Amino acid sequence: MFSTPIFLVYLFINLLTQCDSRHLNKHLDIDAVQREVRSYSDVANQIIDFSLNGNGKGQSYNRLANFTDKFGNRIAGSQNLENAIDYMLVEMSKDKLENVHGEVAQVPHWVRGDESAVLLLPRKKNLPMLGLGSSIATPPDGIEADVLVVKTFDELNEKASEAKGKIVVFNQDWVSYGVSVAYRSLGASRAAQNGAVASLIRSVTPLSISSPHTGWQDYQSGVPKIPTACITVEDAEMMWRMSQRGEKIRIRLKMEAQLLPSVNSRNTVAEIKGSKYPDEVVLVSGHLDSWDVGQGAMDDGGGAFISWQALSIIRQLNLRPKRTMRAVLWTAEEEGLVGSREYYEAHKSEADKFDLVLESDEGVFTPDGLTFGGSKQAGQIMKQVLELLKPINASKLSESGAGGDIGYFMDVGVPGGNLLNENQHYFYFHHTNGDTMTVQDPHVMDMCSAVWAVIAYTVADLEEMLPRNSTTLKFVPVG
Amino acid sequence: MFSTPIFLVYLFINLLTQCDSRHLNKHLDIDAVQREVRSYSDVANQIIDFSLNGNGKGQSYNRLANFTDKFGNRIAGSQNLENAIDYMLVEMSKDKLENVHGEVAQVPHWVRGDESAVLLLPRKKNLPMLGLGSSIATPPDGIEADVLVVKTFDELNEKASEAKGKIVVFNQDWVSYGVSVAYRSLGASRAAQNGAVASLIRSVTPLSISSPHTGWQDYQSGVPKIPTACITVEDAEMMWRMSQRGEKIRIRLKMEAQLLPSVNSRNTVAEIKGSKYPDEVVLVSGHLDSWDVGQGAMDDGGGAFISWQALSIIRQLNLRPKRTMRAVLWTAEEEGLVGSREYYEAHKSEADKFDLVLESDEGVFTPDGLTFGGSKQAGQIMKQVLELLKPINASKLSESGAGGDIGYFMDVGVPGGNLLNENQHYFYFHHTNGDTMTVQDPHVMDMCSAVWAVIAYTVADLEEMLPRNSTTLKFVPVG
Repeated sequence: MFSTPIFLVYLFINLLTQCDSRHLNKHLDIDAVQREVRSYSDVANQIIDFSLNGNGKGQSYNRLANFTDKFGNRIAGSQNLENAIDYMLVEMSKDKLENVHGEVAQVPHWVRGDESAVLLLPRKKNLPMLGLGSSIATPPDGIEADVLVVKTFDELNEKASEAKGKIVVFNQDWVSYGVSVAYRSLGASRAAQNGAVASLIRSVTPLSISSPHTGWQDYQSGVPKIPTACITVEDAEMMWRMSQRGEKIRIRLKMEAQLLPSVNSRNTVAEIKGSKYPDEVVLVSGHLDSWDVGQGAMDDGGGAFISWQALSIIRQLNLRPKRTMRAVLWTAEEEGLVGSREYYEAHKSEADKFDLVLESDEGVFTPDGLTFGGSKQAGQIMKQVLELLKPINASKLSESGAGGDIGYFMDVGVPGGNLLNENQHYFYFHHTNGDTMTVQDPHVMDMCSAVWAVIAYTVADLEEMLPRNSTTLKFVPVG
Repeated sequence: MFSTPIFLVYLFINLLTQCDSRHLNKHLDIDAVQREVRSYSDVANQIIDFSLNGNGKGQSYNRLANFTDKFGNRIAGSQNLENAIDYMLVEMSKDKLENVHGEVAQVPHWVRGDESAVLLLPRKKNLPMLGLGSSIATPPDGIEADVLVVKTFDELNEKASEAKGKIVVFNQDWVSYGVSVAYRSLGASRAAQNGAVASLIRSVTPLSISSPHTGWQDYQSGVPKIPTACITVEDAEMMWRMSQRGEKIRIRLKMEAQLLPSVNSRNTVAEIKGSKYPDEVVLVSGHLDSWDVGQGAMDDGGGAFISWQALSIIRQLNLRPKRTMRAVLWTAEEEGLVGSREYYEAHKSEADKFDLVLESDEGVFTPDGLTFGGSKQAGQIMKQVLELLKPINASKLSESGAGGDIGYFMDVGVPGGNLLNENQHYFYFHHTNGDTMTVQDPHVMDMCSAVWAVIAYTVADLEEMLPRNSTTLKFVPVG
């Protein structure tokens, strides 16, 4: 999961207000909705049983294990990601999904190269680190400089005169990902504004076992670019203590990172064509790219593979909804929702035909239900749909806002939702070498797949599309 | 904390039955004991208040942070450990403790050197690893071999014919440290018995963020020595899946590890001399050495520093118990309770004068009380002593057995106890680079210090020594 609040600002200006008669606000006969949705109880139970006890049991976990064990991590721009996409196109075709294809998207190609950070004073210590995505390199011999440690941007501003020529270490508190990630995203430019020569950011996580967490960062225009990396919580706290004691801290940082020319990648698409309204679409999604550390099993192999599985279950059960179910496995999410933006640009003229867009990119832990964004009436219908998931205790509808790769479509009024799951430990592993199959659980993935399949199939088969507001919804960034 | 069940076997043969009149089993007047112990309520509350709210507040945490930030990790045999011991002797003298000195102990000197493991087939992947203590090196060019993955020793025996010439990977389940550590301790020799050329052990932990956990291992006599290291839970599970699919797995392992000649280290000792029975001793302890990864803040900086702090609090409060309070900070615990064995050998003739031996080596998380081993009557007295800790909710006495570095004395009948604390996450960080001050909490360390000081002071000041059984206690290994 990528999240850079600054980037999202531009989304707010992207508004579209037209909507056709198929999802106009009409008076909602909630009793009729309830009756219609309840008629899907049997098929929902069939899906759940197939996934938890039938031929679907363990399928999404095993498919994901095969995939990650074969390819490992898959950063945008890499040949390995393209090989992984080729594999998925073959596998989804073998799974007898329809219209399986890739859609080209131009993506950044950042390469980490060798990198290291060493504490030289007050004593020598290796500092485990990971360069941040889009960072420039240091000179070949590295940068050796004294260190200024701060906890906040405000403290940096107060100590601006001390930052010049230094490596700024940010030891920000963990508040939440949404709050604390600002230091990863903006730390380099804020430090550079004050004359720093590099910045090292405390990893954005509530728990660390000496584990650096990488992620994208955003150089601000008009500010010199300086090399930037994340370090461990432990080392950031240690240097904070050293600095509080008045000890002189000195670091040597070496990074070979390069932002190479953009390359073509692909969003990976598969469908089950609708029987009655084939041009209307319920979209399920996750992203296939990952960071270049770990195995990309959690972020976002899990989300991508339950999206495949949602269609796979429906196909294996010989079901076919009225509307088309489409799985899209995004590329280059980690570089700033790049693949999904290209997809939106190519398909925005069809936005009226998108009934519901779903995305799972915050873990596939025990599912609770759905975080939903859409019109009030759509929410009332979705609440009924979620009731179908009571047998697996995943019927919660949270209307706290949804977003991510589906945000582009939501921003123009398409109802959207993210998988709501018990992801309290998500950020332990996020963007680290610990993002592996060990985080995943077969039974839990079966449950998440069932949630995805029940919601997507039911909404795709209802007679009416979900009603929209005439004004568009505000896009709410997640996570 | 070190634990090798095999090693402990020899302890059972070390029995001593004599005891002098000062701790003979007499009829225990529990009401009298209760009255005597209750008379310490005021002083216990004074200790607690001093530690939590007075000048003691934050002291043990700050002292430990200064120490670990200055020295980092401190493996037995290293000059850094000896420098750290010198520092402690100076600091404890400056703290006005008495009879501050080192007692020489000969310790192993194992040096890790450069090391790496790379998965070559079915695909190339770096395998984070840590050589296990006492492991031999590989040849300079490393060992490249096919892999046999097993989950249990039984499975290895069944597949004995497949092990020859291979690197055996153990992917044992996490059951508990006490159970699962057998694979770390004995995996190399079991693999070698079947003709393996090296062994890689899944790290012994319930949670991993791609974090290898080192530790001592025991070559069995009469079995060829082969290089052995721990790998991550994630990679062990991945290779297990690969092997279940019938994929050919190949690894290149390089290790430069050397066991150099033994060197002299020191157990670090400080006292508050008893006013009435100065030759009788209540001993508090933890170990000062650590593994050569992380910072040794948890294992066992915390235990060592609350032991110092227990005496420091008593000295700062100008208290002086009847018996001597002695802090011993063991050396070379991690290589198999080496420092404490040497200490026992030097002091076993005084065992009758040891009233109570305490050790903290399983974390200094929120304290619950004490795990105690001793006679029934001693337990009854200790139960009363623990009542003094009700104000901080740490009055639990668990009689499930105690041990560790104090096991040598317990084995000859000296009552002993380990700090009972909420250490559910201890093994997340144990023997990893994540063993740092980040695991510690100042307030919690103040509470643990208060527990240690209240128990040690009270027992040291009671008129009678704790009663012993006429037969000695069975030594129960911990953790």
